[in-house]
Amino acid sequence: MDDLKLAGISKEKKHTVIEINGIKIGKDFVVIAGPCSVESEEQTLKTAVAVKKAGADMLRGGAFKPRTSPYAFQGLGIEGFKILEKARKETGLPIVTEVIDARDVSWVCEYADVIQIGARNMQNYALLKEVGKLKKPVLLKRGMHSTLSEWLNCAEYILAEGNPNVILCERGIKTFETYTRNTLDLSIVPAAKEVTHLPIFVDPSHGTGKLSLIESMTYASIFAGADGIMLEVHIEPETAMSDSDQQLRPEDFEKIMNKIKKLKQSYDTIVVEEIG
Amino acid sequence: MDDLKLAGISKEKKHTVIEINGIKIGKDFVVIAGPCSVESEEQTLKTAVAVKKAGADMLRGGAFKPRTSPYAFQGLGIEGFKILEKARKETGLPIVTEVIDARDVSWVCEYADVIQIGARNMQNYALLKEVGKLKKPVLLKRGMHSTLSEWLNCAEYILAEGNPNVILCERGIKTFETYTRNTLDLSIVPAAKEVTHLPIFVDPSHGTGKLSLIESMTYASIFAGADGIMLEVHIEPETAMSDSDQQLRPEDFEKIMNKIKKLKQSYDTIVVEEIG
Amino acid sequence: MDDLKLAGISKEKKHTVIEINGIKIGKDFVVIAGPCSVESEEQTLKTAVAVKKAGADMLRGGAFKPRTSPYAFQGLGIEGFKILEKARKETGLPIVTEVIDARDVSWVCEYADVIQIGARNMQNYALLKEVGKLKKPVLLKRGMHSTLSEWLNCAEYILAEGNPNVILCERGIKTFETYTRNTLDLSIVPAAKEVTHLPIFVDPSHGTGKLSLIESMTYASIFAGADGIMLEVHIEPETAMSDSDQQLRPEDFEKIMNKIKKLKQSYDTIVVEEIG
Amino acid sequence: MDDLKLAGISKEKKHTVIEINGIKIGKDFVVIAGPCSVESEEQTLKTAVAVKKAGADMLRGGAFKPRTSPYAFQGLGIEGFKILEKARKETGLPIVTEVIDARDVSWVCEYADVIQIGARNMQNYALLKEVGKLKKPVLLKRGMHSTLSEWLNCAEYILAEGNPNVILCERGIKTFETYTRNTLDLSIVPAAKEVTHLPIFVDPSHGTGKLSLIESMTYASIFAGADGIMLEVHIEPETAMSDSDQQLRPEDFEKIMNKIKKLKQSYDTIVVEEIG
Repeated sequence: MDDLKLAGISKEKKHTVIEINGIKIGKDFVVIAGPCSVESEEQTLKTAVAVKKAGADMLRGGAFKPRTSPYAFQGLGIEGFKILEKARKETGLPIVTEVIDARDVSWVCEYADVIQIGARNMQNYALLKEVGKLKKPVLLKRGMHSTLSEWLNCAEYILAEGNPNVILCERGIKTFETYTRNTLDLSIVPAAKEVTHLPIFVDPSHGTGKLSLIESMTYASIFAGADGIMLEVHIEPETAMSDSDQQLRPEDFEKIMNKIKKLKQSYDTIVVEEIG
Repeated sequence: MDDLKLAGISKEKKHTVIEINGIKIGKDFVVIAGPCSVESEEQTLKTAVAVKKAGADMLRGGAFKPRTSPYAFQGLGIEGFKILEKARKETGLPIVTEVIDARDVSWVCEYADVIQIGARNMQNYALLKEVGKLKKPVLLKRGMHSTLSEWLNCAEYILAEGNPNVILCERGIKTFETYTRNTLDLSIVPAAKEVTHLPIFVDPSHGTGKLSLIESMTYASIFAGADGIMLEVHIEPETAMSDSDQQLRPEDFEKIMNKIKKLKQSYDTIVVEEIG
Repeated sequence: MDDLKLAGISKEKKHTVIEINGIKIGKDFVVIAGPCSVESEEQTLKTAVAVKKAGADMLRGGAFKPRTSPYAFQGLGIEGFKILEKARKETGLPIVTEVIDARDVSWVCEYADVIQIGARNMQNYALLKEVGKLKKPVLLKRGMHSTLSEWLNCAEYILAEGNPNVILCERGIKTFETYTRNTLDLSIVPAAKEVTHLPIFVDPSHGTGKLSLIESMTYASIFAGADGIMLEVHIEPETAMSDSDQQLRPEDFEKIMNKIKKLKQSYDTIVVEEIG
Repeated sequence: MDDLKLAGISKEKKHTVIEINGIKIGKDFVVIAGPCSVESEEQTLKTAVAVKKAGADMLRGGAFKPRTSPYAFQGLGIEGFKILEKARKETGLPIVTEVIDARDVSWVCEYADVIQIGARNMQNYALLKEVGKLKKPVLLKRGMHSTLSEWLNCAEYILAEGNPNVILCERGIKTFETYTRNTLDLSIVPAAKEVTHLPIFVDPSHGTGKLSLIESMTYASIFAGADGIMLEVHIEPETAMSDSDQQLRPEDFEKIMNKIKKLKQSYDTIVVEEIG
């Protein structure tokens, strides 16, 4: 990787561990779950309670939604963040939520435990630099057109400003295949692990865009070596205001959570133990 | 194009013409030329004078440079804009320059005649909305991963805020081919023309990333039906602080300009006349 | 192009010219036109007469059709070749037709003036070696997933067997864009010209898959520096057994031919002359 | 999948099971291992004995090698098949080997237990039809540019001729990413399973082209639901005549085999059991 000169990465060799409310990202296997969008208090709280009960570690939910069309639902904004605050209070789950404008970073930080930078904004350098000035953990999604090297350089934009708490998240890349919404690139997980110390998550919901493929891609992600998973869950997916084809019902998420726990144990026993 | 519901476009059917200092974009064939980055007063003024003399209509030059690596030259910022202002004063050429942060839009407008949104920021919706609030013309580059539909939806973000002065610019997409830096998609020119009334430019410098291919792709763009061309020119390309492999020398640019004028006449006489 | 060690190409530096019935491929600008498939004697002869009248230099027409589905029309086979023979007799146009099986190469050569290797068979090395044993000109289409280097290596498979008469043909590559059937890569034309002496054609019919884009891509190809063009023409496109969305009517082809001639003259006068 | 009309698949709904020497492909989890190329008797026999000892079910090895360059090693041909025959005799392992020319299908069948169609020949319809006339199992690799629909249509070419014994094999697709040789698309495994009854394998060796990524992609494939795996193993990878960067040493393969067995048990207990 000749074109990758990453001071932030060469400076510290140890695998990064980010602690949030006792959850150790980069050490524990962490599940982030929740709706694509915060649509209402009822929808968000019910989903939050359900994913907490099923065993999720953190709650995701977008109050700012970067949508392809300007006429699509753009998120509830400040009202959405207040709903997320209630959900955190009620469930104790830390909040992962997206920021799409550098001007919103400081105040959103009061509501967010992890700031998400979406795929479309991966190379929004103004935004990267802004979140780099904080210590707040940042979940940096891979751009749908981004090589590993370009992605890590974006992480470096954040590290270079002084924020070491970056979590990578693979979410599928654009290819010619049309059966899936994106092509989930699981090989990027071990690839990233061999050139960086940053934790890496997988988002099989966006990565496939297809409900029927999410379960197996979740399990495969564990064995690709991911540090965690991000899943979209909605109490009533068919009424969702965005991504209705890829949000799990709480009962299905619960079944998957049960298997994730057992599979993680298999992974630790069979794969890691024998490496160690 | 089922997924394309563009009120801004359906509202006005007439081909958009944007007038800047007597130049009619969407009617005249317009050549934007200049360095990738504003590096110094001398470099910028000399290049500006040279491209003006060769027949360019507008001057390009980046004062904010979105670079893959945070350690690469990031542009001169405000100092760069002041240099561009001098170049405009000296040559009379209107200025095309990039903004990468919504917070800079208002003050950069005092220096820019056309605001450029780069490929990496095509889906930076906060930035699109900000430039949508002005009447200042916006040159919107195609994202390197963007379908025609996604691109036009980004244009619509600007139109929907009230700014009708959008110019599209094809600059190459990401494919598996490695001989060129990007794959220049010239078929997007007539494709865009059949679904939108917006003018469309081509940038063969970024589109190929290879000096030896720029000339023929420039001529091909004219016959693909482009409304204009954007070319990188540098007085001393080998010392350029960015994109040194794809910037033309002024003398080569001048030769190309001479042919562009003649070829545009051939295009109008042979292709357009017989259509009309 | 480090991975390209092409003895066939390094051996002979001179631009290859292939003469067929007085037509000089690699010197003259050559237009190959005709139906996607040979469907019947009437359809083929009428189309052949029409394209001849309009000024085409050679006749294309498939008797073996490599189709995505095994249940789609697979071509008339030997019957089709006999129809092509009649068309050649009646119009004097040399025949360009595809072979998809090494076992058919020898006998098809009696009907074909140029053997076409289709995109799907670009890396069918058994077939390449077989046509390499002849002197019959071979039109080698670029695989839809092929880099320039891989493509030229396939040409080299033919050259290495002793057949120097290879014509390259760009026909669009697979990308994420769905507005067009393929993404026509015109920059491959000057790119190929800087690393090989072989003539290169463009096929805007397959390259775009969209009738409305063919005309401008044809003109753009001339100015990209192509040595010729291949266009699908059908007397009644709406009834065509294959590719009905991308075949021109004879009257539209004739209008395009008239402009091609004038544009080629512009190209020679304005672009080439000044280079020479 | 509107464009997929596959009689062979709609005719028989039951999951296909193909029995070879007591190995049940589509039921058991099957590991195919061996060198990229058959290079010599010693290299092949030693590797065969080693992979047998480690627990492989079948032996792979190419006697015909489709190589990008005509000057690269093209395989030992008939001599190679005789070596494979000895390896089968000595180890009892069934042989998986590639055919690249329809003319060789009948005689190669005497040496092969499974005929492999490589990625470059996925749409070599003459070859597909030829192997369709037999009952010999066919391992059909996905073309590096092929959508699921196009791939399944190629399988259908074989089924339509009367051979129901088709095994799919994902081996990576071409994308813009350059860190890996190809992008392994594991989501195609559950995707294929929801539209066809055919068994599907994964080839992480070609799929990544990088030794360091093969192990985790192998484990991930099991949990994506693959019916088997194909791995390149060479007694001395650094001297290999092809693919030297992606062939495992026998001792590393053995460690992976041990984990595969345990992981397959986890998969059956945790994932499948709870589904059943």
